[in-house]
Amino acid sequence: MVVLLKKNPDKTQLDSLTQWLQGLGVETHVSVGAHQTIVGLVGDTSRVDINVIRALDIVEDVKRIQEPFKNANRKFHPEDTVVEVGGFKIGGGHFAVIAGPCSVESEEQICAVAQAVKASGAMALRGGAFKPRTSPYAFQGLHGDGIRLLLKAKELTGLPIVSEIMDASHIPLFEEVDVIQVGARNMQNFELLKQLGKLRKPVLLKRGLANTLQELLMSAEYVMAGGNSQVILCERGIRTFETYTRNTLDLSAIPVLHSLSHLPVIIDPSHATGSAKLVQPMALAAAAAGADGLIIEVHNDPAHALCDGPQSLTPEAFDGLMKKVEAIQPYADR
Amino acid sequence: MVVLLKKNPDKTQLDSLTQWLQGLGVETHVSVGAHQTIVGLVGDTSRVDINVIRALDIVEDVKRIQEPFKNANRKFHPEDTVVEVGGFKIGGGHFAVIAGPCSVESEEQICAVAQAVKASGAMALRGGAFKPRTSPYAFQGLHGDGIRLLLKAKELTGLPIVSEIMDASHIPLFEEVDVIQVGARNMQNFELLKQLGKLRKPVLLKRGLANTLQELLMSAEYVMAGGNSQVILCERGIRTFETYTRNTLDLSAIPVLHSLSHLPVIIDPSHATGSAKLVQPMALAAAAAGADGLIIEVHNDPAHALCDGPQSLTPEAFDGLMKKVEAIQPYADR
Amino acid sequence: MVVLLKKNPDKTQLDSLTQWLQGLGVETHVSVGAHQTIVGLVGDTSRVDINVIRALDIVEDVKRIQEPFKNANRKFHPEDTVVEVGGFKIGGGHFAVIAGPCSVESEEQICAVAQAVKASGAMALRGGAFKPRTSPYAFQGLHGDGIRLLLKAKELTGLPIVSEIMDASHIPLFEEVDVIQVGARNMQNFELLKQLGKLRKPVLLKRGLANTLQELLMSAEYVMAGGNSQVILCERGIRTFETYTRNTLDLSAIPVLHSLSHLPVIIDPSHATGSAKLVQPMALAAAAAGADGLIIEVHNDPAHALCDGPQSLTPEAFDGLMKKVEAIQPYADR
Amino acid sequence: MVVLLKKNPDKTQLDSLTQWLQGLGVETHVSVGAHQTIVGLVGDTSRVDINVIRALDIVEDVKRIQEPFKNANRKFHPEDTVVEVGGFKIGGGHFAVIAGPCSVESEEQICAVAQAVKASGAMALRGGAFKPRTSPYAFQGLHGDGIRLLLKAKELTGLPIVSEIMDASHIPLFEEVDVIQVGARNMQNFELLKQLGKLRKPVLLKRGLANTLQELLMSAEYVMAGGNSQVILCERGIRTFETYTRNTLDLSAIPVLHSLSHLPVIIDPSHATGSAKLVQPMALAAAAAGADGLIIEVHNDPAHALCDGPQSLTPEAFDGLMKKVEAIQPYADR
Repeated sequence: MVVLLKKNPDKTQLDSLTQWLQGLGVETHVSVGAHQTIVGLVGDTSRVDINVIRALDIVEDVKRIQEPFKNANRKFHPEDTVVEVGGFKIGGGHFAVIAGPCSVESEEQICAVAQAVKASGAMALRGGAFKPRTSPYAFQGLHGDGIRLLLKAKELTGLPIVSEIMDASHIPLFEEVDVIQVGARNMQNFELLKQLGKLRKPVLLKRGLANTLQELLMSAEYVMAGGNSQVILCERGIRTFETYTRNTLDLSAIPVLHSLSHLPVIIDPSHATGSAKLVQPMALAAAAAGADGLIIEVHNDPAHALCDGPQSLTPEAFDGLMKKVEAIQPYADR
Repeated sequence: MVVLLKKNPDKTQLDSLTQWLQGLGVETHVSVGAHQTIVGLVGDTSRVDINVIRALDIVEDVKRIQEPFKNANRKFHPEDTVVEVGGFKIGGGHFAVIAGPCSVESEEQICAVAQAVKASGAMALRGGAFKPRTSPYAFQGLHGDGIRLLLKAKELTGLPIVSEIMDASHIPLFEEVDVIQVGARNMQNFELLKQLGKLRKPVLLKRGLANTLQELLMSAEYVMAGGNSQVILCERGIRTFETYTRNTLDLSAIPVLHSLSHLPVIIDPSHATGSAKLVQPMALAAAAAGADGLIIEVHNDPAHALCDGPQSLTPEAFDGLMKKVEAIQPYADR
Repeated sequence: MVVLLKKNPDKTQLDSLTQWLQGLGVETHVSVGAHQTIVGLVGDTSRVDINVIRALDIVEDVKRIQEPFKNANRKFHPEDTVVEVGGFKIGGGHFAVIAGPCSVESEEQICAVAQAVKASGAMALRGGAFKPRTSPYAFQGLHGDGIRLLLKAKELTGLPIVSEIMDASHIPLFEEVDVIQVGARNMQNFELLKQLGKLRKPVLLKRGLANTLQELLMSAEYVMAGGNSQVILCERGIRTFETYTRNTLDLSAIPVLHSLSHLPVIIDPSHATGSAKLVQPMALAAAAAGADGLIIEVHNDPAHALCDGPQSLTPEAFDGLMKKVEAIQPYADR
Repeated sequence: MVVLLKKNPDKTQLDSLTQWLQGLGVETHVSVGAHQTIVGLVGDTSRVDINVIRALDIVEDVKRIQEPFKNANRKFHPEDTVVEVGGFKIGGGHFAVIAGPCSVESEEQICAVAQAVKASGAMALRGGAFKPRTSPYAFQGLHGDGIRLLLKAKELTGLPIVSEIMDASHIPLFEEVDVIQVGARNMQNFELLKQLGKLRKPVLLKRGLANTLQELLMSAEYVMAGGNSQVILCERGIRTFETYTRNTLDLSAIPVLHSLSHLPVIIDPSHATGSAKLVQPMALAAAAAGADGLIIEVHNDPAHALCDGPQSLTPEAFDGLMKKVEAIQPYADR
């Protein structure tokens, strides 16, 4: 962190600033110039509140130079984290595909999709029981019944299950769910993140629509600060001015997150693009760029899906995609 | 809603589409052209799921033409909603200023600020007890103790209080809070909105960083669909590529929301700009553009505020701002 | 500028870096910490290429702390610039309104609009002769004939004229035009800016759709570096995810630009919003926030305007707006 | 195009609207509903000015449903366009890599880079002679001398050359340049596009920082409307709120542009990311997603490049990338 002082800073105030910082265990280096004085802070500044310093009379500006996250930071944990669940691994060279419908609709539907995606090589089944919908009048999911149907599909196929949570009060319903997903709209629902930090169960954390990669890592830090180190990061498109796709998929997130953090990074091309015909090219691109996995919407009858039908693949299309994704693996960036 | 069909649509599928829509109480009008067939839907389409139609084989595209919100829609409720609380009114020509510190820090602090802002003409006291912070290591608020200190300040000054909620499980703590605020990061925390819809207490709903005005109104619709019609909309800046200000304050939201909805619209120039020196020009601009109110951060000692100090006004600066805002009222756009 | 070095930087390379910088007339201050070494640069760093430094082996990152513009910088020119043209002044407390149609269409049209806006108090006439249009099939303006019609309107009313240039090769056609406008799409057409820098005529420079305020000032710097100090800055909306308005008007640009620069700042609410009914609230907001002027589209027959009709005011609406804008002046932020 | 009328539209005005549209060769279909009347326009609406209709008294809103571009539209030209230049082909299954330094600096530099990239399999040499730089104080390129050095490198290696033009007045200097590049900042410099439309030489058109894919195609349409059908589209990152990468590379542009248009689509991972270490993962992702080519910055001494050094690959790194990109080709999305 670098603190830029105003011209001719008061000596007493400057001393009290440097003493306060040293008290926090941070080294300070003052460079006095003819026109400007700069204080460089060296050490662990993750607990220094940048706003407090910025507000001081003698301070013109403050720049953070190091990342404010610690548990998620590759600098302090150089090896890749491998998340392991129900027999599948993700991260550290293990590539995994999670697939399934946007919403759980019926036992018949979820079991049919589960069997199909398993046959094609998916390593986990996704399915929404609680659905965040913009409109209060749209289908909101089957809630507890949806979880029960997912567990039936798990029993049938052996696939671990992944499902989205929308409120901390629902945690008891997710006891047997293998991976708890936090959706983009809840990426900064800090109360929820804190509660998930108390669990010892993998959390699939989606990047918010307008959140930076650093903010995503700070949200992972909320979970990890509670002691739960099993976090999977997921890029699913950000909001931009472009209207042709639902969101803009930011694939540079893959190498950037890999350089900043040791956590596995997966891509959701279905929600990012909002269009089934764009899922395969973006899935292949993600694999080539070195993603640790994918999460793909598959529905046995996309035309009649209760939500997000237009972006769901048929089981046949998913099977074709899996073959191509596997073929591309040896040529991916590492 | 207008449905654009693919070339030479199958007659049977077209008939089944129109019959299904008519079953939902929507009139359909089919225009057959040499190159394109269009189906116009007329009536209440707020419960028609646009994605289901888009997924049909015969459909090329669907455009929604009417707004998908109803309770918040001025078309169905032409008169302005006036929210009334603890003796102050907002909306329908009533202009109100809510002021106070970002965080409640101590009894001394909150009472001093409350007395100061009351003396300057503020109509309610704001103060955060639960603070959404990007970093898990930053000050998170005094929680229940913060609420208790706000109630002391209310007792002392008579000012109604406004405070932010972060999780539905905290609702019991807010029983005596006059206005419950939903922060930008929780604008699409739909479980929370549903629970607030069951209360009969004003909700101050802030626009999310990357949410459209229509999505803001859809979130208001979540609260209103539960029977709670006392919603105050708040614009507090959106996320753009500009880095000089913390966010970009979208003041056109004022006339746009007033034309689409009957709900009162207030502006938060403190969070939008992140800088005390930009608060006054933006507050005056908001008043001139016809806002129904403002929410302003005021701290008796901004340099030592535990959060967001740099954007807080001193009581003296707030007093000056209030005089200017009042003077501009007669010239505001209506 | 602050240069953050990698761990254990090579001593010889560090010396050569500091010597090179000192050769450019910049003071350097090296702070060696246990974990990190920082070099602070103090002095005029506007000619130091940040990318060259960033590319050095020993450098981890570089942060610019001071603004890279000089002629436009208030630090080096504390008094407001007042642009004076054909008897009207803008900046330094002088508020001016420029009004007229998007396109010059006919002598009858431009003269009628000129007389109307003059009667309402406009200080200059705008009118497009060269029109930047997204589609090659849309009306592109009357070109040289348009300029001639503007000059007739000037002769008739005495109003100075403002018109947009799209290519440096057209400069001779603009000899009698009082203020040359550079449109948003050409804000970084650097060849054009350089040529305009050779003139001694005011340039009205519009902010690009996706340009930061700093980039706007850098483009002003292009004109000023050529010796032409008469630049008027214009905010006209930026591109965001919001689709209800054509662009998002960033009114915080007014106080921010005023703090960074001495140049006058005007607002174009017509192009920013794209909707006539939003022009007045945004014009009043701009005036209240301390803008030095406005540029407003006025057409005597908006319904039949050849471009941008929906955002043009009628002369009557403009007259009403002028009265309100004048009334608000004494209460504006300064 | 669909025109939504206000309630109870005036019959005479409606008739005059439909007659006017029919006069433009567009079929109209009127659907009268109890609450709303809709006019569907069928046929070639690319020359209908949407703003003129929107401005009519009886009209509430207009929605364009078909694309406003024609020459660039795959609907009217189903086969892929193959651009052929100096022995290399791009598009229609032909994948080509263009490589070279950001700026031409010296004969030694450009010849060394040309030989290196040719040896690694590049099909054309890029090099900037005219450089668009945000700051007037930054290196602006060697101009005519730069073009002459590029031609020397062409003579030496046989590689066709690609260079950026910044102003129509420079066209004579580009007579022997094989492909003329239009940079992102000039994507809507319509005067330049018109002049390039008169040439019979390939144009490499880069997407603007804040331009939609439709606007990119409209700019291609400007060139094509002049009779020059040899346009190569290039995605090079868009401006978003994310600050970690210079821009956000929008790889979904590849399948989207391929579905809307027959023109070849290439990707520039160097400018998009601004960081050498992100170039390879994004290049592989682009290839996997079905891009027709890449444009990559390569410099023989990135640490001392006069511009954009941090994003340039060394010849060795480029050689490694080429091998990986070739290996991935058989598995790319088509």
